[in-house]
Amino acid sequence: MEKVLIISGSRSDAEIVKKAEDVLKEFGIGYKYEVASAHRNPDKVEKLVKETTAEVIIAVAGLSAALPGVVAARTFRPVIGVPVDAALDGLDALLSIVQMPPNVPVACVGINNGKNAAVLAVQILALKDKELAKKLADFKEGLKQ
Amino acid sequence: MEKVLIISGSRSDAEIVKKAEDVLKEFGIGYKYEVASAHRNPDKVEKLVKETTAEVIIAVAGLSAALPGVVAARTFRPVIGVPVDAALDGLDALLSIVQMPPNVPVACVGINNGKNAAVLAVQILALKDKELAKKLADFKEGLKQ
Amino acid sequence: MEKVLIISGSRSDAEIVKKAEDVLKEFGIGYKYEVASAHRNPDKVEKLVKETTAEVIIAVAGLSAALPGVVAARTFRPVIGVPVDAALDGLDALLSIVQMPPNVPVACVGINNGKNAAVLAVQILALKDKELAKKLADFKEGLKQ
Amino acid sequence: MEKVLIISGSRSDAEIVKKAEDVLKEFGIGYKYEVASAHRNPDKVEKLVKETTAEVIIAVAGLSAALPGVVAARTFRPVIGVPVDAALDGLDALLSIVQMPPNVPVACVGINNGKNAAVLAVQILALKDKELAKKLADFKEGLKQ
Amino acid sequence: MEKVLIISGSRSDAEIVKKAEDVLKEFGIGYKYEVASAHRNPDKVEKLVKETTAEVIIAVAGLSAALPGVVAARTFRPVIGVPVDAALDGLDALLSIVQMPPNVPVACVGINNGKNAAVLAVQILALKDKELAKKLADFKEGLKQ
Amino acid sequence: MEKVLIISGSRSDAEIVKKAEDVLKEFGIGYKYEVASAHRNPDKVEKLVKETTAEVIIAVAGLSAALPGVVAARTFRPVIGVPVDAALDGLDALLSIVQMPPNVPVACVGINNGKNAAVLAVQILALKDKELAKKLADFKEGLKQ
Amino acid sequence: MEKVLIISGSRSDAEIVKKAEDVLKEFGIGYKYEVASAHRNPDKVEKLVKETTAEVIIAVAGLSAALPGVVAARTFRPVIGVPVDAALDGLDALLSIVQMPPNVPVACVGINNGKNAAVLAVQILALKDKELAKKLADFKEGLKQ
Amino acid sequence: MEKVLIISGSRSDAEIVKKAEDVLKEFGIGYKYEVASAHRNPDKVEKLVKETTAEVIIAVAGLSAALPGVVAARTFRPVIGVPVDAALDGLDALLSIVQMPPNVPVACVGINNGKNAAVLAVQILALKDKELAKKLADFKEGLKQ
Repeated sequence: MEKVLIISGSRSDAEIVKKAEDVLKEFGIGYKYEVASAHRNPDKVEKLVKETTAEVIIAVAGLSAALPGVVAARTFRPVIGVPVDAALDGLDALLSIVQMPPNVPVACVGINNGKNAAVLAVQILALKDKELAKKLADFKEGLKQ
Repeated sequence: MEKVLIISGSRSDAEIVKKAEDVLKEFGIGYKYEVASAHRNPDKVEKLVKETTAEVIIAVAGLSAALPGVVAARTFRPVIGVPVDAALDGLDALLSIVQMPPNVPVACVGINNGKNAAVLAVQILALKDKELAKKLADFKEGLKQ
Repeated sequence: MEKVLIISGSRSDAEIVKKAEDVLKEFGIGYKYEVASAHRNPDKVEKLVKETTAEVIIAVAGLSAALPGVVAARTFRPVIGVPVDAALDGLDALLSIVQMPPNVPVACVGINNGKNAAVLAVQILALKDKELAKKLADFKEGLKQ
Repeated sequence: MEKVLIISGSRSDAEIVKKAEDVLKEFGIGYKYEVASAHRNPDKVEKLVKETTAEVIIAVAGLSAALPGVVAARTFRPVIGVPVDAALDGLDALLSIVQMPPNVPVACVGINNGKNAAVLAVQILALKDKELAKKLADFKEGLKQ
Repeated sequence: MEKVLIISGSRSDAEIVKKAEDVLKEFGIGYKYEVASAHRNPDKVEKLVKETTAEVIIAVAGLSAALPGVVAARTFRPVIGVPVDAALDGLDALLSIVQMPPNVPVACVGINNGKNAAVLAVQILALKDKELAKKLADFKEGLKQ
Repeated sequence: MEKVLIISGSRSDAEIVKKAEDVLKEFGIGYKYEVASAHRNPDKVEKLVKETTAEVIIAVAGLSAALPGVVAARTFRPVIGVPVDAALDGLDALLSIVQMPPNVPVACVGINNGKNAAVLAVQILALKDKELAKKLADFKEGLKQ
Repeated sequence: MEKVLIISGSRSDAEIVKKAEDVLKEFGIGYKYEVASAHRNPDKVEKLVKETTAEVIIAVAGLSAALPGVVAARTFRPVIGVPVDAALDGLDALLSIVQMPPNVPVACVGINNGKNAAVLAVQILALKDKELAKKLADFKEGLKQ
Repeated sequence: MEKVLIISGSRSDAEIVKKAEDVLKEFGIGYKYEVASAHRNPDKVEKLVKETTAEVIIAVAGLSAALPGVVAARTFRPVIGVPVDAALDGLDALLSIVQMPPNVPVACVGINNGKNAAVLAVQILALKDKELAKKLADFKEGLKQ
């Protein structure tokens, strides 16, 4: 059963998503990846969020990046947003993702930074998984090299 | 029955919405105004869009202004988006609204420009309403004064 | 007789225009495309707008993208503006097109997004054409794939 | 007969225009000031430009500041544009005015800087008016105090 | 013992911090709030992070908002960053917080949005606290009113 | 004797300068082009401005584009500034050139738009040269093709 | 004899300059403050720079903030630039000051941050003044309170 | 013993650092270059700053460029920051570096401008080294060629 659900708004975000997948695999965390656009197929997004057993959701999107917010509107699990540079150096997606109204947060990471979305997911999951916390401590130590 | 449905993401957008309402009243166009946040109450937004008989929808939102795009995702009627300046001079809302992905357009007007949203709605409705077209021509003529 | 008139400010916008043309052809909508710069040949722009029988006008322009506004100044038909990225990632054209003064709206779509301009035009025309509305519903359904 | 024609897009630009008028009066240069919006009353703009005997035209506008470019499209006299801060700190108007396409220049001065528009006009007129050049040299010297 | 540690870079951030405190109190979550600047007192920041038993850290900062990243450098717990508008509408702080390098994420929320930082912290803590999850579901439901 | 003096801040601006030179040659206007940096060789800039008989000065610069303003500080002839895109899409140079303080104007044209600088210079010179005015009218007419 | 020369482009920068003066007084460093605009009175700027015995120069300016660069062009002493928010939140002055061409550096500090300019000057002077270094260490320690 | 310590946040900044190294070598100034990330290895940064005998520190970083500020927090020697364009044209790093809070300055130079960081370091060091001052005067003179 997936611990993390990754949704990207477009197939063209695959490269960014892969950076997240690599981290999750490295930490041995089950995940599921689906492409579902908040604008082209909102029902699929809604269904994915309703049915998932994942504890953390990563949403990856460019342009008018509504996806992370739309996911956050339908869950009270933590939602991590990754802005993709599809135009304007990704500034449009960054602002669309981070500037959420009060009470409906999205945890925004850097532009195109799929890796950080996954590391953040691991940090969250490690709060209740001692083994994962141990791996994370080693990972953190390894960054110094 | 309403010809235009206005949705704003927050009660605090009322002043911008009023500018649109005034135009619609001036042109004698039936409308309905509802507050419904894409992030706090997506079901209400979905229900409003599904049940409306309006031919044009005006969506008003600030910050991560997902509302116009979320509405556009659920209708093939024209959706007009009004970015509200709630932060960053409204640049966040402007980019969130205008930078829609291919195939799901939102017709974006200027920041805080509720008036233009309504005039655009009238222009669209006038295409099949000769009396309205006549009024619009007079309105256009009146702008010269 | 054309239902949609497309004007671009420069021959170099042809690629963006083509994205619009492809959509209009797909929906079987008659259109006419002309290159006419608001700055180099304002009389041609004025003449095109005055003589057209089109119900919707799409104006495509980069830099100081005055064309959509200049067209909107001379018609009360809906005008759709497409900002082209010719400099500054297209931010100059976006702001020039979207920030129209009260009472003279332009329906702005995303940067380089000729496709959305055409889909929006189809949405507007479909309000009085049931067959077109049917095609649009199918198109919308097809986006989910 | 006016040497300088000042056009502003809106009555609300009067304060900026006054800064220009004060300079022109100080230098004893005849001018005429008209309010004419490129978007609400393009015929008036066109008529003003066609009929003026002014050697320099100053155009003042905010938002989608098309006015200076529209004037430049209809004259080969020098056109000076003044961007007004009506939104976005005036960045929208600045880009709309300065980013003209090749062959149709507008001489853009700083945001809200009506004074500089007038001083530039004086500098241009002084090229063929020795008395004015003398006054300008004195003015320039006076800036040092 | 605190579940959440809030650090702000300056006493002047107190109003933003209060929005977070109110949420945490509402959910009955123990927290500790300290003022500690990453630039004026890095040892205090380091000590706070080393000694805390908190599971989530909220870091609030304006300008060159290094604090969230500096905290993230010293913990593998989730760090939530709140950009404060102290200049440039908060864009400087937003970019400083969100654009972290790979492997060291900060979960950035909106400008001045202390409330969302706290809601996100609650969402994270609720993953291992069923009672809190229940409260969060009620809170989420309450947003619809 | 030159009518126009062109100064660029760096040899690397030659391509932008060439666009201006081509226009001046086409109109048969005598000009002189010098490379002189306001930052590396201010004495040369000062000497060029003091000694020139040119009636209009075009200054081309990127980054902290002080050159046009520095020239304007030393002459009361019209100074035209051309911002060069050497970083930040040329936004740094644009703002450096256009945002002059009151009383010391620079006539700013678009980013990299050496052509418009020259056309503007021609427009200015044509005010006292009927033959040039005639050529300019033809040139303007030719833009319509 | 002054150790630090402060020049501001306008009398209106006095408040920003005062923040610098207060620091210099606190550290007992002799300084001289002059208002001299690079655009209105370049000769005065040049004279001030040539005649000063100061080891560090602080230049404060807004808009097209050429002053720091113009000073740097005429000295090989360290020049510290302070961008003033006179428009566009100070972004114009910031970019004008910081984006100097290779070989002619200006040490730019934050927008309106006269205090940091002075502290930086003290840090530089302390490299050859042990007593000053001692005071600086105490000052630094005091920041922790 | 090094006079200048250069720290860059990432190995990928080597090209920018090299521009600084070349200048320091040309002036015969001893330096040491270390890669140490403020986010991945803050202890190394702290140790480098504590142990160095350098009089000036150059810190080079992109994205959330915390490094210069983190260094400045731990020393009262002058710290020069070089923003690297790793995203958003380097605007994120520029703002992160320059917008330091009062009392903890960083001397920011232009984006990617490693050369200016080194020249500034030389200018600072030359204040107490007459031979270096002589070389600097020659260097300055040489810029005019």
